[in-house]
Amino acid sequence: MENKPFLITKKLQPENQESPIHFLSPWLTPAKYFYRRNHFSYPPLTPRHLWLQISGNVSQPRSFHLYDILSMQAKSLILPLECAGNKRAHFNPKVYGEQWKDGAISQGKWTGVPLAHLLGQTGICNQTKEVLFEGVDFGRKPNKEDMIPYKRSLPLETALHPDTIIAYMYNDKPIDYKRGYPFRLIVPNWYGMASVKWLTKIELINDSFNGPFQTDDYVYYPHKHNDHDSFPVTTQQVNSIIQQPLPFSLLNTGVHEIKGIAWSGKGIITGVEISLDNGDTWQRTVLERLNEPYAWTKWSFLWHVEKKGEYSIYARAKDSQGRIQPIHAFWNRKGYGYNAVLKVNVKIE
Amino acid sequence: MENKPFLITKKLQPENQESPIHFLSPWLTPAKYFYRRNHFSYPPLTPRHLWLQISGNVSQPRSFHLYDILSMQAKSLILPLECAGNKRAHFNPKVYGEQWKDGAISQGKWTGVPLAHLLGQTGICNQTKEVLFEGVDFGRKPNKEDMIPYKRSLPLETALHPDTIIAYMYNDKPIDYKRGYPFRLIVPNWYGMASVKWLTKIELINDSFNGPFQTDDYVYYPHKHNDHDSFPVTTQQVNSIIQQPLPFSLLNTGVHEIKGIAWSGKGIITGVEISLDNGDTWQRTVLERLNEPYAWTKWSFLWHVEKKGEYSIYARAKDSQGRIQPIHAFWNRKGYGYNAVLKVNVKIE
Repeated sequence: MENKPFLITKKLQPENQESPIHFLSPWLTPAKYFYRRNHFSYPPLTPRHLWLQISGNVSQPRSFHLYDILSMQAKSLILPLECAGNKRAHFNPKVYGEQWKDGAISQGKWTGVPLAHLLGQTGICNQTKEVLFEGVDFGRKPNKEDMIPYKRSLPLETALHPDTIIAYMYNDKPIDYKRGYPFRLIVPNWYGMASVKWLTKIELINDSFNGPFQTDDYVYYPHKHNDHDSFPVTTQQVNSIIQQPLPFSLLNTGVHEIKGIAWSGKGIITGVEISLDNGDTWQRTVLERLNEPYAWTKWSFLWHVEKKGEYSIYARAKDSQGRIQPIHAFWNRKGYGYNAVLKVNVKIE
Repeated sequence: MENKPFLITKKLQPENQESPIHFLSPWLTPAKYFYRRNHFSYPPLTPRHLWLQISGNVSQPRSFHLYDILSMQAKSLILPLECAGNKRAHFNPKVYGEQWKDGAISQGKWTGVPLAHLLGQTGICNQTKEVLFEGVDFGRKPNKEDMIPYKRSLPLETALHPDTIIAYMYNDKPIDYKRGYPFRLIVPNWYGMASVKWLTKIELINDSFNGPFQTDDYVYYPHKHNDHDSFPVTTQQVNSIIQQPLPFSLLNTGVHEIKGIAWSGKGIITGVEISLDNGDTWQRTVLERLNEPYAWTKWSFLWHVEKKGEYSIYARAKDSQGRIQPIHAFWNRKGYGYNAVLKVNVKIE
């Protein structure tokens, strides 16, 4: 009877829960451990929601039933979805909002149909600039009166990427109710707000969408007291987690495996290094990969330590686009995209 | 279908998990939410462990079978058990060891037989100084070679207190395997290390026990680099938790319920106050109690806030012995008994 972890609740209503990422190492996160991030209550679903409507700047507006989509050529992708607010709790100065630690990220296998295939059937009119996606979930944003659905857009080019899929299965089972049944848009490399759950309507538009989850939330605001220099949150920053040892652990002398995961929204991870001397020198860790373009990379390092005392372990990842985790976080008012090098302090007794 | 929280894993092996205390408000914590704190692996139990052996400085050594004990006059107590390391994560400077936040505390109803009743049957010889309790769980402490059981002693006077019971039920059901089946010593007002799980042997001794869980762990060491001025961990410090709002929340203007719990290991809670101006002024909260001498007290305060901005909410509890939560924590090397006034920062938008 193995000891097992659980999802970590940050808020009950709406439901926000982190994955117990320090205690899991699978390539495919079981659905019960997949992080949950909601803006509103879970939506009421009806048989109407088995239809996916595509309209707007198309030659032929169409509704596709789940069964139509199940009969089309499918593709499967293993990739991590990550909340843009993952690691927000680490910002210093602190940023208000959901205090995600390291666990608002989960990886698994999504199966579905490329959106481009569906748009091939509707046709795409000239002057289409963006594709707008609407979920069934709706509610009120704080201090606002209107009830609004969750709605986000993508640039047409991203929407037409062959790996932008309308998913209907997670780890070879239907997507469960709390995670977007029956359709979820999956946008590899982008933070999770782009991967709209309970997808119900798709609209091709010829301008830039400016709804609250597009131009109010999910925007980097570098300044505390104004909106100057702001720019949208899109692809995941290069990033890593130290899964073991845990912060402020007491350990024996001897050999310890320092391990974790690393990922990037651009390119692949080319290296993860650790430092045991506060960043003076860095040592390469051993990487382990899946043969999947988007999947996270596992890393590990065997640490032989005989001298008692306090140690700081730093880890930093680099990707094939030349990006590397910075020493200092890019502070932004809503606390997105935290990817600074973090340290774990341990004491050898 | 209500959203529900889960236990929060701090370590898988041995299993240490916090109660999701910010999301629960029952007088009786359901067993599945009761915090778990282990020093060793869960022990293998056999029918032998249905017997409780009492020996040492007694007139008549005896073994009591669970069925004997079930037939005796029972008493039920509602009380909180709390790990001595609860809130260790709040120490500044940081203390190494399990980084419990606020959830290593759970309250429920324990039913059992007063130990004094059993010792009335064995007789107590003169010169008995302490009563030594041994659990079935055993293992090695870090950097030690010997396999040892979990063993702790109590002063005779505490052992004979009418509310020191040998419990066999929690919330009217047998104590579950992970939490000490079949017998657990319950010592009200003392931190949880005293309430030995999987209790199997009781020995009356005429000196002071000095095992590792008595004189090495569970001792306050006020100095970082030596053991001077050390003294044992015993009864719970006066303490409180702010359950809502959560730290670094974003809230609307309007009315918010600030709420939490408070408790003490000496006397009862006489008041819980909050401050919204960094400790300049304090306001009384509304208390809610059970008619039970050891149970925690619930407290709440309706906060009307119209002005946007950042606020700090402090809470402090007082007990009937005149103790009050201090502003600064009593730093000690192993990080026990944290009970300083804590604050929750929120932002009204």
